[in-house]
Amino acid sequence: MQEYLEKAMALQAALTMFDWDAETIAPEGGAGCTARVVGVLSAEYFSAMTNPRVRQLAAACREEELDASQRAVLRTLRRRLEELEKIPPEEYRAFRELLARSPVLWKQAKEKNDFAGFAPVLEQVVQTSRRFAALRAKEGQAPYDVLLEDHEEGFPMAVLDPFFQQIKEEIIPLLRRRQEKPLSPAPRRSCPVEKQREFNLWLARYLGFDFARGVVGETEHPFTTSLHNHDVRIATHYYEEDPASGIFSTIHETGHAIYEQQVDDKYNLTLIGGGTSSGMHESQSRFFENNLGRSRAFWSAIYEKLQKMLPEAYGGVPLEEFLQEINRAEPGLIRTEADELTYSLHILIRYELEKQLFDGTLFVSDLPAAWNEKYREYLGVVPASDSEGVLQDIHWAGGMFGYFPSYALGSAIAAQVEAHLRSIMDLDGALRSGSLGGIRSYLKEHLHQYGGEKKTNELLLGMMGEPFQPGYYIQYLKNKFGE
Amino acid sequence: MQEYLEKAMALQAALTMFDWDAETIAPEGGAGCTARVVGVLSAEYFSAMTNPRVRQLAAACREEELDASQRAVLRTLRRRLEELEKIPPEEYRAFRELLARSPVLWKQAKEKNDFAGFAPVLEQVVQTSRRFAALRAKEGQAPYDVLLEDHEEGFPMAVLDPFFQQIKEEIIPLLRRRQEKPLSPAPRRSCPVEKQREFNLWLARYLGFDFARGVVGETEHPFTTSLHNHDVRIATHYYEEDPASGIFSTIHETGHAIYEQQVDDKYNLTLIGGGTSSGMHESQSRFFENNLGRSRAFWSAIYEKLQKMLPEAYGGVPLEEFLQEINRAEPGLIRTEADELTYSLHILIRYELEKQLFDGTLFVSDLPAAWNEKYREYLGVVPASDSEGVLQDIHWAGGMFGYFPSYALGSAIAAQVEAHLRSIMDLDGALRSGSLGGIRSYLKEHLHQYGGEKKTNELLLGMMGEPFQPGYYIQYLKNKFGE
Repeated sequence: MQEYLEKAMALQAALTMFDWDAETIAPEGGAGCTARVVGVLSAEYFSAMTNPRVRQLAAACREEELDASQRAVLRTLRRRLEELEKIPPEEYRAFRELLARSPVLWKQAKEKNDFAGFAPVLEQVVQTSRRFAALRAKEGQAPYDVLLEDHEEGFPMAVLDPFFQQIKEEIIPLLRRRQEKPLSPAPRRSCPVEKQREFNLWLARYLGFDFARGVVGETEHPFTTSLHNHDVRIATHYYEEDPASGIFSTIHETGHAIYEQQVDDKYNLTLIGGGTSSGMHESQSRFFENNLGRSRAFWSAIYEKLQKMLPEAYGGVPLEEFLQEINRAEPGLIRTEADELTYSLHILIRYELEKQLFDGTLFVSDLPAAWNEKYREYLGVVPASDSEGVLQDIHWAGGMFGYFPSYALGSAIAAQVEAHLRSIMDLDGALRSGSLGGIRSYLKEHLHQYGGEKKTNELLLGMMGEPFQPGYYIQYLKNKFGE
Repeated sequence: MQEYLEKAMALQAALTMFDWDAETIAPEGGAGCTARVVGVLSAEYFSAMTNPRVRQLAAACREEELDASQRAVLRTLRRRLEELEKIPPEEYRAFRELLARSPVLWKQAKEKNDFAGFAPVLEQVVQTSRRFAALRAKEGQAPYDVLLEDHEEGFPMAVLDPFFQQIKEEIIPLLRRRQEKPLSPAPRRSCPVEKQREFNLWLARYLGFDFARGVVGETEHPFTTSLHNHDVRIATHYYEEDPASGIFSTIHETGHAIYEQQVDDKYNLTLIGGGTSSGMHESQSRFFENNLGRSRAFWSAIYEKLQKMLPEAYGGVPLEEFLQEINRAEPGLIRTEADELTYSLHILIRYELEKQLFDGTLFVSDLPAAWNEKYREYLGVVPASDSEGVLQDIHWAGGMFGYFPSYALGSAIAAQVEAHLRSIMDLDGALRSGSLGGIRSYLKEHLHQYGGEKKTNELLLGMMGEPFQPGYYIQYLKNKFGE
């Protein structure tokens, strides 16, 4: 079995590499031919995973004879086999080719504000995703729940609906009350990209990114990926007119990367070699970005460095003013630029739209109108164009449905993690002294090292004695943004 | 058969991608794990190419029933099969893994000037290469000839020995005579890397590199690679203290890239989808670099642009002085920085050493001494360290034996191509007017479009009515560097 899994892992690494490349430097004109290559490699991955020998062995293995990590590999394998076996190989391959092309088309559509041009492709992605999910659904299971469980086991609509309901009930009123006092316009900061690049590389290192086992590149839409835990890659972005955007993207992605880099070597190039789930991953990135990265204690250690390296932007700005700027909360159109308070409302909107797309009550052609209506209702703002509306995210073009909820879950878990850390260590003291090693070690010991062996609730239970509790998050937002 | 070849082509593209990545941005600490991935993918490539079904079909195909390009694919396939079938799969895989690791170790050894530390790895690469070549040799064929024919069909030692003999007899005395009049020291030019990057990207575009179907990256040792002819990649380098180095690396690599980008689409992702051989490739890169790129006509069109974009380096330098600088000829230690006159002597040395390594008259441990001795004898200079001596090139670390001769062949073919072009068009006029399109079109029509369908001598014969003739090269050097 090892032989087939090794082959599948190698093909997976190659596919990851092509993804990374496509998002960072690949030439647009090559996308068509490269899609063919990716299609063939995906089909090979598919056939390695579903090889009859693998299936036989997976069926014959007895869990009680395995140790914990072997058991986790076996469970993951069985889960993947269940997924893959339900989908005809030819359709799987055609879908992978579609998904290799469609982000390129999305990018063009976004640039040209041309939703109508992209809609037929998106329609195909939605329909195929729904069809595959329906093929894989257990008796009585909704297709959308299949996708939700792909990203976060144990968090189907039955769990997410009340979570988002609570967000809706608590956060929207909080936002409304804040909106009664209008904010002065955000000051404009600008700084040459070259200097931002230097600062951000320094910052990633400061946070603990290991450059001997990773790369920082650039892209439009920041992300982190991993060939294996010795080669973890961040792509961030820099806007001359908005240095804060790059800084917080870098901190966010570094949070993801540290998680991957701290997974135990014994899981490397196995099915459980990465972080356990999207939500858990997002909890680490958002913990670094928000709970640490927007705090006074964090910046009190490195604000002088920032001023020195980006003098055009922050040279004359007192720390106090900077902290206010990076903690502003006001409704906006763009999820990735959203503040902590409004962020989960952006997710709420996507969650509700995805549910409708998958239960058939919303057509792709009606997405822009539905999108704009929800933005008006929940955030009080309406996109002037689809580029800053329904076309803003790459996820749907990549077939990533059921993924967005993990962003909100991640924020919620991050709040829970912060509360726990404050109960066992002097978090602010560590940040003020500029030594983040203790925080990283603790996260490694209780969360990161386990890779995919333990699931989200198991990890939280092991670390702090209780499973996921959304209350911490609501309380955190109320404390920070309430009166 | 298409199915297996398609799989092999996709795996080949993935391996190319991992190579590109390793040479441009991959983190050093990831090399070990990535080598495992590369090993598995290489084994898959091997098994796709040597699949019994492919062999059966390759044996059953009748050449007379195929068109020219199918016939070329079949011949290439049969050739590869012959190669691969002689090597035990396990050994092939182990060798690919070795070759994925060894360039990293070479790089470290070069940085630390530690030949002894690298020697055991190099020994293993040499021994395995020789063993594989011996397994593949036809009756009475020398192992080194097997490797020479891999890179350039029709150019074994029986052809190369007299070619290099002529170089030895004609070029060394030419150099000696020039050395009697000592040159004044080369002036120092320097310019920020950021500006060089901008100029070089402009220059690649000016030469005809298609950025919609290619990427320009950075590395230590410049190279060009191709996933397919819609995604062709150049890696160049920039030294703050030596802008000319980057400029001529870029022109050289752009020559390679234009060849790949101009291959006809019908060959794409087939076994004959790239340039036909290393020597032919090198003829195009060196034609752009030297025959065009060091000429007065070429720079008269764009020298003002250069001065404007790199004012720190060339702002006050008259064109005449610049032309003298870029056409200096004097012995040096580093092949990639060598001028046209001494370049082929660097190759001569490597050719002679490789012959000895492969006929068993030279041990790897004795390489540094033999290297230094030949540099003293032919060029009159001796490396002060192995880093600028035997460790300077990546080729041997990558198992590329038999490749170096193609650099000299390429220079010689370039001279022949130039002579031909001058006989049919106003080459200088085209260069002076800054319109290189006609030159590119002619090369496309007669050389590039054919990909691997036609071999070197067939292409030359088709273009100019005669096969390879080294006399043009010797004459070119005598005209340019003689009294």
